[in-house]
Amino acid sequence: MYPKNCWYVAAHAHEITDQIFARTILNQAVIIWRAADGSIAALEDRCPHRLVPLSTGKTVDGLVECGYHGLRFDSGGACAMVPGQDTTPKNIKVQKFPVAERHALIWIWMGAADLADEDLIPDLHWMDAPGWAATTGYLHFKCDYRLINDNLLDLSHETYIHKHTIGNDAVADSPVMTEVIGDRVVRAHREMPNIDPPPFFAMAQGNDKPINRWQIAIYMAPGFNMTEAAFHTVGTDRTRDHFMMRPIHIITPETDHSSHYIWGLARNFQLDDDELNDRIYEATQQTFMEDRELLEIQDQRLRAEGMPKLPQLPVKVDKAPVQGRKLLEAMIQAEQDDPNFCLPPVMLADDDVVTQPFAVAAE
Amino acid sequence: MYPKNCWYVAAHAHEITDQIFARTILNQAVIIWRAADGSIAALEDRCPHRLVPLSTGKTVDGLVECGYHGLRFDSGGACAMVPGQDTTPKNIKVQKFPVAERHALIWIWMGAADLADEDLIPDLHWMDAPGWAATTGYLHFKCDYRLINDNLLDLSHETYIHKHTIGNDAVADSPVMTEVIGDRVVRAHREMPNIDPPPFFAMAQGNDKPINRWQIAIYMAPGFNMTEAAFHTVGTDRTRDHFMMRPIHIITPETDHSSHYIWGLARNFQLDDDELNDRIYEATQQTFMEDRELLEIQDQRLRAEGMPKLPQLPVKVDKAPVQGRKLLEAMIQAEQDDPNFCLPPVMLADDDVVTQPFAVAAE
Amino acid sequence: MYPKNCWYVAAHAHEITDQIFARTILNQAVIIWRAADGSIAALEDRCPHRLVPLSTGKTVDGLVECGYHGLRFDSGGACAMVPGQDTTPKNIKVQKFPVAERHALIWIWMGAADLADEDLIPDLHWMDAPGWAATTGYLHFKCDYRLINDNLLDLSHETYIHKHTIGNDAVADSPVMTEVIGDRVVRAHREMPNIDPPPFFAMAQGNDKPINRWQIAIYMAPGFNMTEAAFHTVGTDRTRDHFMMRPIHIITPETDHSSHYIWGLARNFQLDDDELNDRIYEATQQTFMEDRELLEIQDQRLRAEGMPKLPQLPVKVDKAPVQGRKLLEAMIQAEQDDPNFCLPPVMLADDDVVTQPFAVAAE
Repeated sequence: MYPKNCWYVAAHAHEITDQIFARTILNQAVIIWRAADGSIAALEDRCPHRLVPLSTGKTVDGLVECGYHGLRFDSGGACAMVPGQDTTPKNIKVQKFPVAERHALIWIWMGAADLADEDLIPDLHWMDAPGWAATTGYLHFKCDYRLINDNLLDLSHETYIHKHTIGNDAVADSPVMTEVIGDRVVRAHREMPNIDPPPFFAMAQGNDKPINRWQIAIYMAPGFNMTEAAFHTVGTDRTRDHFMMRPIHIITPETDHSSHYIWGLARNFQLDDDELNDRIYEATQQTFMEDRELLEIQDQRLRAEGMPKLPQLPVKVDKAPVQGRKLLEAMIQAEQDDPNFCLPPVMLADDDVVTQPFAVAAE
Repeated sequence: MYPKNCWYVAAHAHEITDQIFARTILNQAVIIWRAADGSIAALEDRCPHRLVPLSTGKTVDGLVECGYHGLRFDSGGACAMVPGQDTTPKNIKVQKFPVAERHALIWIWMGAADLADEDLIPDLHWMDAPGWAATTGYLHFKCDYRLINDNLLDLSHETYIHKHTIGNDAVADSPVMTEVIGDRVVRAHREMPNIDPPPFFAMAQGNDKPINRWQIAIYMAPGFNMTEAAFHTVGTDRTRDHFMMRPIHIITPETDHSSHYIWGLARNFQLDDDELNDRIYEATQQTFMEDRELLEIQDQRLRAEGMPKLPQLPVKVDKAPVQGRKLLEAMIQAEQDDPNFCLPPVMLADDDVVTQPFAVAAE
Repeated sequence: MYPKNCWYVAAHAHEITDQIFARTILNQAVIIWRAADGSIAALEDRCPHRLVPLSTGKTVDGLVECGYHGLRFDSGGACAMVPGQDTTPKNIKVQKFPVAERHALIWIWMGAADLADEDLIPDLHWMDAPGWAATTGYLHFKCDYRLINDNLLDLSHETYIHKHTIGNDAVADSPVMTEVIGDRVVRAHREMPNIDPPPFFAMAQGNDKPINRWQIAIYMAPGFNMTEAAFHTVGTDRTRDHFMMRPIHIITPETDHSSHYIWGLARNFQLDDDELNDRIYEATQQTFMEDRELLEIQDQRLRAEGMPKLPQLPVKVDKAPVQGRKLLEAMIQAEQDDPNFCLPPVMLADDDVVTQPFAVAAE
């Protein structure tokens, strides 16, 4: 259950070299590599001769060579050489996929290839933009990607799953304001004014003074999430003096019940602090592995029950994840109704505007 | 294939504390714990909100708190708290199961709750009665529980499976007298008069003198077994001078192809001998693991063959297990015919009567 | 997809003793042992009483005793003893399979027993004939046996799979002459005249002089393969002075997706060199494990795609494997059309004739 006519993130850009990188995306095994001219190539991971994965082989002069009988294919999927014969039949070819490199990420288009317009790539510039430093990582989750979106849109789970790291009672107890932007984005905004700073925040501001903290879970269908976490010292200027982290969670379906969790945690302070980078990497992997443990159990249970609709009995904190599911389902339905349907991306956050405290009462 | 309207043993009583104990019984995942007032509580192990197991969480003030979003439930299954909101909707509730604590065991009723009469609990008083000392243990078997009953009702297998421990040729070679008691119990009785004592028995009587030995396999549907093993020195009084062990094997179905083997080995001698306890524990676990190895192989084969009826070709030693299966099938059928059907338990053994040698010829 | 009315190799002869040897062949679990008179016996690995494998037990006085209740069976499958009773019912019996010992191999016939004529056993005399020394081994492959035949009939794969051991560009680049012999054998012959000797060949001839090398892949349906590898020093006599290895690859289906790879590598030089034996054993197991790794991946992919016909897009080197598949399919079809159909074996190689260089142009 996922749309196909949209860009998905296949990998971090630094993971793709002139060697074969193999990954299954939307139930399709693909290989990705940099061809001789440095351009990114993506082919179906399947030799059309005897159907072994091309990833059994290696690259030779920018071509992919099958590991069984040595047939070679170029970045367009055409057969460039068959050992033992002088000619290369034109019918021996491999499906190629549109790919792009942007925001330090490798993007792939698994739907109708002629619709693959690079203008449709979501803006995740925080991964490599000036003024931001991004720590990056990857985790494999054995669960439906939608469960991860649900989880990221309801941060009240932090109090229970992450009780030893980033959660505390303030998160679950604070009200949430939820809004839908366009046909593709949901935002869930929590304010926590005048609280004691948790350890990480105290370290960032350099003291224990009370802070005004806020947290915004932003979801763009099908699997792009940003969970803005920010604060400023009470008495200082919110717009000018805030510290901000923008963790970006890119969830790409691998199969119906497994997902790639490709993440970057961007911050606007201490940009060159390598030790901080290392600490963020360790803490973030640890935190997401706590989610993983629970979500994999949830997926097993849902499969055993025949994948019932979630939530079964919605409570107040479900408002944002329910809206997120609605947008996703509409996107999938629209594509089923019109095979040429593509939904343009929406801006996740405007760097020129700092979100202000609730103008209206949170629900 | 099991009756539901009867008490099953869920655990040893000492295993249930104020923390969550999770176990699947009759294909139903349940959690069991002691509530604030010390009473035993059992709920379905499933949060009705997003369907994760409640066992992902913990107990708080005698309530169970889900490990995902922190919903809390009381021992009756009612929702006591939903984080992020002031009200607790009445439709958010969890199924509860009748439970009882008796004979150092925790009993659970998985059938129609209004039929759960504690008078229907089988008498297994040897687990904690004066004059008896019981060594206890637990093993998980990956096989249909009925295969374990079959095995316990035909002790001729001891000669082959337990050739290194308790079996010898005398067991397989001795005749058996089989009788059915009421609608629920089968007894298979073997006498082995005037034989040399196996090592364990020589140790118990303190010398190597010849013994009169007997062995009675008692089965009560669906999964209660006692395998009385007793002897007295030749020339002494059977009723007054015997040594007796009453191993109690409680087989509770986990799924159609896995079982809980909850056991207690009661003896009427050397009651306070802790070292003997330890030796019995080690020897018994070892012996039952020998059964397990074979029964798990048997279960795999039966599944591969589509679960044919057993035995395919009955021989003489099958008489008791065949009768045991008949009682069990009748009990299941009666419940299918009448959803309110419950079969009262039968006394497994009368402590005031010592079974005498065969009055009639064994078949 | 395999014929049943033909002899299969179950094991090396030295593997069968007076103890139980258990193996699944053509989806049928069997046990094999040497009875009291030294003759080979093969029975279904299944006690007809409670359906546990007889291989849970042991042999006693040349009989097989079930590991559960001790029923004993003779080499004809008749029940010889039931513990606890004096009579042995005639209906308790186990299916037996025709077996034979020849060429240091144990042969079994899984089809209609009355057709099991020992004259139909293929001639694999190189396993134990004078003038030959055979190193032997066994490997389990989790793949359809036909994939292994395909692999052995197209040795161009050596260049890619075995690039670190026996392969080099000469193999993939040399032309192949393919011929069909009778209804059961395909030969694929490659000549490599006047090349530098690879290390193993230099060692055998004792110097680095150029050699004339040839290689003949011979396949007899359903799973007999010989891959003759030979050479002589340039300027010497091909018939008289050649060194020859005849690796024999016997592929017996275990299940639809797993196979027994029973091999013997016969050579006509350094017959008594035990150290050479050891080196051949290590190198050969290593080489076949390289095939295994790839073929198991191929099998998984084919299963995921519903077992499509191979090759999907044939290239030049597929000529021999395509012909091999044709012979095999015809053999299976003939047996389906006529349950009494048996195909006599064909001589794989005539020791009195040394294959000469191509008389006609290779295709």
